[in-house]
Amino acid sequence: MLRLGFDIGGMSIRACLLDDQNMRIVAQKAEPFPIGQGEDALISQLKRMADDISLPLGLSPEMHRSVGVGIPGTVHRATGVLLSACNLHLNGMPIVQRMRKCFPNAHVAVANDADVAALAEYYAGAFRGYDSGLLITIGTGIGSGMIVNGRLFDGGKGLGSELGHITLQQDGPMCACGNQGCAEALCSATWLERQGRYCVLDYPMSRIATLAQGKPENVRAKDVVTAARDGDGVARQIFEEYVKNLSSLISTCCYMMSPRIIGLGGGVSNAGDFLIAPLTERVKRRARLYVPEKIVAASLGDAAGMIGAAMLPDMEQRENLQDRCG
Amino acid sequence: MLRLGFDIGGMSIRACLLDDQNMRIVAQKAEPFPIGQGEDALISQLKRMADDISLPLGLSPEMHRSVGVGIPGTVHRATGVLLSACNLHLNGMPIVQRMRKCFPNAHVAVANDADVAALAEYYAGAFRGYDSGLLITIGTGIGSGMIVNGRLFDGGKGLGSELGHITLQQDGPMCACGNQGCAEALCSATWLERQGRYCVLDYPMSRIATLAQGKPENVRAKDVVTAARDGDGVARQIFEEYVKNLSSLISTCCYMMSPRIIGLGGGVSNAGDFLIAPLTERVKRRARLYVPEKIVAASLGDAAGMIGAAMLPDMEQRENLQDRCG
Repeated sequence: MLRLGFDIGGMSIRACLLDDQNMRIVAQKAEPFPIGQGEDALISQLKRMADDISLPLGLSPEMHRSVGVGIPGTVHRATGVLLSACNLHLNGMPIVQRMRKCFPNAHVAVANDADVAALAEYYAGAFRGYDSGLLITIGTGIGSGMIVNGRLFDGGKGLGSELGHITLQQDGPMCACGNQGCAEALCSATWLERQGRYCVLDYPMSRIATLAQGKPENVRAKDVVTAARDGDGVARQIFEEYVKNLSSLISTCCYMMSPRIIGLGGGVSNAGDFLIAPLTERVKRRARLYVPEKIVAASLGDAAGMIGAAMLPDMEQRENLQDRCG
Repeated sequence: MLRLGFDIGGMSIRACLLDDQNMRIVAQKAEPFPIGQGEDALISQLKRMADDISLPLGLSPEMHRSVGVGIPGTVHRATGVLLSACNLHLNGMPIVQRMRKCFPNAHVAVANDADVAALAEYYAGAFRGYDSGLLITIGTGIGSGMIVNGRLFDGGKGLGSELGHITLQQDGPMCACGNQGCAEALCSATWLERQGRYCVLDYPMSRIATLAQGKPENVRAKDVVTAARDGDGVARQIFEEYVKNLSSLISTCCYMMSPRIIGLGGGVSNAGDFLIAPLTERVKRRARLYVPEKIVAASLGDAAGMIGAAMLPDMEQRENLQDRCG
C-alpha cells in the first residue's frame, strides 16, 4: 500500500508517499512551514502537498487509506489533538479531525515527531529486529520516542515521554522551561554550542576559537566535536562533560524503561563512534543489568519523520487489534 | 477463587490466601526469612507455609490454581528467574520453575516486590479506577512498580523499572551502588535519617536531638518528620530539601511515564498531607502537562506485597490473552 506521511517542523513540512512493502519513498516534497498563518493555512497546505505528490500517481484524496502526521509538540494520540506546540502556535488543534475531512477514506493518525522517528527506526532503520528501542533526538532540544513490545509507548496519560525535561542535576543550569538541570539544559546541541562560545571568549587560541574565526556566535555544536577530535584540550574537556551528561540521561532511561537498543538522532549523532564508544562505556558502568544491548546512531536521518508518520496508522491498527482482544 | 500469595522480604516471609471476589485475605502467616540457607530451604519453607494456611481450608497443594510471589530484586518475569537479589543470596534462582513442582496445577508467577505492591493498589487499593499508576516505595532504598493501561510495565528488557538508581544530581552524594546522585541516595528514608544524624551532632539543642535523646544512632526518618511538623527550624530545612529531592524524582517519572496517579509507600508516606501537599505543589510547577491527577499515600500498607503477589497470575493471564491476539 502507498501510505501518506507528513513531517511537520518549525521551519519546513515534508510529505512523502511510502510503499509499505519495501519501505521505499516513491514520491516526496518539502515546503516551508506557514509560520503564524494558523490552522486553516496549514491544512490547505498539507492537502495541496499531498495532491502534488499523489495526483501524478493517479491517487486522488478519496483514494488514500493511510495518512500519518508527525509534529513537534505534545500530542494526545488517542484523540488526535495537539495539546501543546508552542513554536508552531497551534495549541489545542484537533489535527486528526481536520485531516479526516481532507482524506475521508483514510485512517488518519498523529503523533509527536520523535515518536514517529522511533517508529521509522523500528520499521525500517536501526531498530529492526528489536521489539523495544528508545530513540533520543538531540538538537536545539531533546526529543524521544520509545517502542515497547513492538508498540509505541504512550505512557499512562497517553502523552508519551518528554525526556528533555527530566531532572539530571537538581541544582544545575537553568532550562528554557524555567526549571533547573533538565536533560535539555545539559544534553542538547545547544549545551555544546554554549560551552563552545564561552571557550572562544576564554581561550582565544583554542581550536574551537580558530574554527569559529574568533567569533562566539559562529560556534556550532559540531565545531566542539571537531576540535575535540583534533585533540584540543579544552574541547576535549567540554566533550567529556557532554558524554557524562548524556550518559546520565541514557542510564536514567535504562533504569526506567530498559530498552534493548538506544538510537541517537540529530546532528550530534554524526560524531559516530567518537561519541558512542565512550558513552557506551559509561552507560555500562552505570546501568548494570539495565544496560541496552546496543547504543547506535539512528540510521534514517532526516527522512525518519515522514517514514514514521507514514507507518503510524499501521501501528495504530495493530494496537487496536490487540486492545480489542484484551 | 482462593489465590496463594507470598511476599518474600529480607527479614520475613508472608503468605496469604486471597479471595479474588472481594479481595479479602482469608488466611495468612508470617515467618522469618531463612537467611543464608539457600534455595532448597526457601522452597520447603514456602511449601510448608502454604500447607499451614491451606490444609485447614481443605486445600491440598494440587488444588491450588494460582500462586504468586513478590521478591525484592530484579526479576525477569517472562522466564520467572530472579536475576539479582543480593541481600537474599539467591541470584539466578529459577523461582517459578521450582515453585511449579510444589504446585503442579497452578499458574505460578513471580515479580519484583514493588511491582506486586503496585498491582495490589491497582486491584484493591489507591489505584482503583485508574488504568495507570506508579507506586514508589520509600524505605532503606527506593522501589517502584508501574501499571500502564491496566498492565504491569516490564520495560523493554522485561525487567521493570529500577527507579532507585536514576540520576537526579549528577555530582550528588554517593549511592551504595557506587554511582553518584541516584534517587536512592537522595530520596530514601536513609537520606532523612542521615541528615537527622548530622543534625544531632551539629545542633544538640534541636528538636531532632531531643527526640533522639542526643544520640545520632537513635535518629529515625520519622523523627525528622516529627520535628519538622513541630516547627523545628533545622528539621524543616531538611524536610524541605527532602521534598525537593522527591519532587525531582516524581517529576522525572511523570515526564517519562505520565502515570495518572502516583502512590507513595513505605514509612515516609505516613507523613501524609504534611509531605504530600508541598510535594504535589512542586510537582505541579515542574511537570506541567505531565502532572498526575493525584499523588496519594498507598493504602494497603504491609499487606500490599502478598495481595499483589496473589493477584499476579490473574494479571499474567490477562496479558497472555492480549498478546495472543496481537
